[in-house]
Amino acid sequence: MKIKAIAFCVLAALGLSYTAQAQTDSVMMRKIFDEALVNGQCYENLRYLCKKIGPRLSGSAGAQKSVEWSKKLMDGYGFDRVYLQEVMVPHWVRGEKEQGYIVTGTKRTSVALAALGMSVATPKAGVTAEVIELHSLKELETLGESKIKGKIVFFNRPFDERFIEAGSAYGTAGDQRNAGPGAASMYGAVAVIVRSLTSALDNYPHTGGTSYGTNKPIPAAAISTIAANQLSNMLKQQGNTPVKFYLKTNCQTLPDVMSYNVIGEIKGSENNKKYITVGGHLDSWDLAEGAHDDGTGVMQSVEVLRIYKALGYKPKNNIRAVFFMNEENGHKGGLKYAEQALKDKEEHIAAIETDEGGFTPRGFSFDRATPAFITGINRQWKKLFELYEADRLVVGGSGTDIGPLRETHPNAMLIGFRPDSQRYFDIHHTPNDVFENVNKRELELGAASIASLIYLIDQHGLKF
Amino acid sequence: MKIKAIAFCVLAALGLSYTAQAQTDSVMMRKIFDEALVNGQCYENLRYLCKKIGPRLSGSAGAQKSVEWSKKLMDGYGFDRVYLQEVMVPHWVRGEKEQGYIVTGTKRTSVALAALGMSVATPKAGVTAEVIELHSLKELETLGESKIKGKIVFFNRPFDERFIEAGSAYGTAGDQRNAGPGAASMYGAVAVIVRSLTSALDNYPHTGGTSYGTNKPIPAAAISTIAANQLSNMLKQQGNTPVKFYLKTNCQTLPDVMSYNVIGEIKGSENNKKYITVGGHLDSWDLAEGAHDDGTGVMQSVEVLRIYKALGYKPKNNIRAVFFMNEENGHKGGLKYAEQALKDKEEHIAAIETDEGGFTPRGFSFDRATPAFITGINRQWKKLFELYEADRLVVGGSGTDIGPLRETHPNAMLIGFRPDSQRYFDIHHTPNDVFENVNKRELELGAASIASLIYLIDQHGLKF
Repeated sequence: MKIKAIAFCVLAALGLSYTAQAQTDSVMMRKIFDEALVNGQCYENLRYLCKKIGPRLSGSAGAQKSVEWSKKLMDGYGFDRVYLQEVMVPHWVRGEKEQGYIVTGTKRTSVALAALGMSVATPKAGVTAEVIELHSLKELETLGESKIKGKIVFFNRPFDERFIEAGSAYGTAGDQRNAGPGAASMYGAVAVIVRSLTSALDNYPHTGGTSYGTNKPIPAAAISTIAANQLSNMLKQQGNTPVKFYLKTNCQTLPDVMSYNVIGEIKGSENNKKYITVGGHLDSWDLAEGAHDDGTGVMQSVEVLRIYKALGYKPKNNIRAVFFMNEENGHKGGLKYAEQALKDKEEHIAAIETDEGGFTPRGFSFDRATPAFITGINRQWKKLFELYEADRLVVGGSGTDIGPLRETHPNAMLIGFRPDSQRYFDIHHTPNDVFENVNKRELELGAASIASLIYLIDQHGLKF
Repeated sequence: MKIKAIAFCVLAALGLSYTAQAQTDSVMMRKIFDEALVNGQCYENLRYLCKKIGPRLSGSAGAQKSVEWSKKLMDGYGFDRVYLQEVMVPHWVRGEKEQGYIVTGTKRTSVALAALGMSVATPKAGVTAEVIELHSLKELETLGESKIKGKIVFFNRPFDERFIEAGSAYGTAGDQRNAGPGAASMYGAVAVIVRSLTSALDNYPHTGGTSYGTNKPIPAAAISTIAANQLSNMLKQQGNTPVKFYLKTNCQTLPDVMSYNVIGEIKGSENNKKYITVGGHLDSWDLAEGAHDDGTGVMQSVEVLRIYKALGYKPKNNIRAVFFMNEENGHKGGLKYAEQALKDKEEHIAAIETDEGGFTPRGFSFDRATPAFITGINRQWKKLFELYEADRLVVGGSGTDIGPLRETHPNAMLIGFRPDSQRYFDIHHTPNDVFENVNKRELELGAASIASLIYLIDQHGLKF
């Protein structure tokens, strides 16, 4: 009761008019947060997913196990509808552990290295070649085939630390990993090694997907930031003996396999053709438990529905939690979801993706939002979120899995959950992305923030 | 240059008027953040303090070593004045590792336990007595001496998880540790054990200070939250055999010793009698490296001055970084600082304390701020901080070390740096409070936020 009183005082202090509706919304949000913080289940669900199932890359036994367990979890919560949505997914496997070393004359310096997802393997004997260090894809063009051909291209542009949000640093450095191998292949490179996409100076290679486009696939791997600095220093100091690199990767792409998005629904009491989706991705990289990426996201998504049931909240619209499959190396789950929603003529009001880690919530970003929308939503709802320190309502990206709805459902508002971004890339796509690095309250505050936003959208729509 | 452009766009989007002053402030803040994020030194300084010096409770060899090293660090930065301020501090020592177990009939269940700071030891043979579980100090009064006398009082009120800011949960549970032992002593208790002040379910006893006031000292110790739950369950199930507890602590309070606040100054170019102070505390609990509590605070404080020097910023007022001694078990450093400032007739505009951990900045709280002040500062400066996501400018507490200025300098604005609060009490006052749990960028963003606020105060004062 004391906390409710605080809520009202804060509203008063902030000058929000005491309309009956604002009062109702404020009380409901307080109930949502209390339920998440006092009776929350997402943390223990996440523990199970990470510790009992673990890595779950598309096509793996772990992925299949996670699908079955997730459906059971949703069934257990007694949602109105729980089902699997079939989707064919790529099946890339890493194979035996990779090897890599820097070769200077007769000296070999071992380097921790991880093949990039969807990359091709080296020949069995591995690849050895001179290294050329680049800092952008554009340099390939400047240097031309004469300088690149037969070499191993080493992309070594670090994160730009001046960005306040770490996701922006990741975004702007990411082309080296995403498109670098394909581009270097065009100029005759024999392999690519990429500086891990992180601010952290550590000894983990951070894996992640790459796409060759229409270019000839060449072996591609990430090396740790410490190894990247070491290699770069050796290149700076090289005299007449050129610095070479050896890598051996053993990955392969097997035939596509059938997998599933796992979907749970609470039926709308008024609009049974209108949907609000909340989701994250169930698959993870093979090297990690996939705790923050994206175990936290799926567990927050199902927690939203659990909270509504626990509070007896009957939404006006259908609310759906979607555990997308194959975000990491193909996005097939997201594509399938949008395609099926179009086929079924579903009307989607909004979709919210949580795939930036289970850290303290800061707010939400709204894709395709007009300035008027941002002004309106801040005027109406910012104060409600201020009490929970999750009130940054800004224009910005949403997420990979809900992205395809942009084409199929141009009227749906696509929304990204925005937690604190600073620690995400320390552990992203490494064996350090484990349950122990998730804080219970941070995870729960995120789930409650998302449940609150969906409640407000369900009640009032998104016309600003 | 690109980021500067972004800063201006954001200002424009947010509707801040393009006064020349706002533009100057915005550019300066961008420079401060760039310096902290690209050339920051607080993280490596913290590494040294934690790893080469480590625990530094008042009166210990570690504390003395940290004073000497801190002075050298400041000397090395070439500040205008670096000096030690003498202060007599208590010298409490833990002694041999404590022992504790739950006794049920002939069964003993071992429990990790840590004496509370400033507590007295048990007799050499330890203390064994029946346990009575309480959830508040008020219950002592309700139950009275007849129920308490001769027993070990077990305070077991957990954190109220409904608080959004973890510091509020700590604040409201804290009386059990701070004042519980003294209060229980009044009713004839023979010892007190306290549930650790944390949300985390872990096996660490979280130590911390206690004060008996004028009551007779009795032995007092913290037990882990897991042990507290276990003991509570045993008490619920006890039949005719009462649940007893055994503890043996070996602490003692030695004579006070001379120690020091370490102070560095950049002289003001206009007002050589006016001061702005930024500080944290140099001492830490004996069990921990004192990384977040409060190595991060002192290293951010000195970083503020380093940033100004690096940017060639000449403040109008004297800017002082203060490493306070003895925050944890006596507050003598803070008391001495205020007393001396009064004696020296210094005029203090503002003092900022950073002692809530080196986590992502959220904003600042202003002690004794009027509603008009809060409205004014938000109107003038909130937008400048929004770009850095550190824009919560609210009324609230400041800190223990600058607290005494409230009496001696009633015109000084006392300000608390407010970082994200969720992880602090997971590691607070435990051996887990280590360097490895500090994120470099989070620490640097905090230092830059503080440097920005002090820059604004230095330029414009605090009249709103």
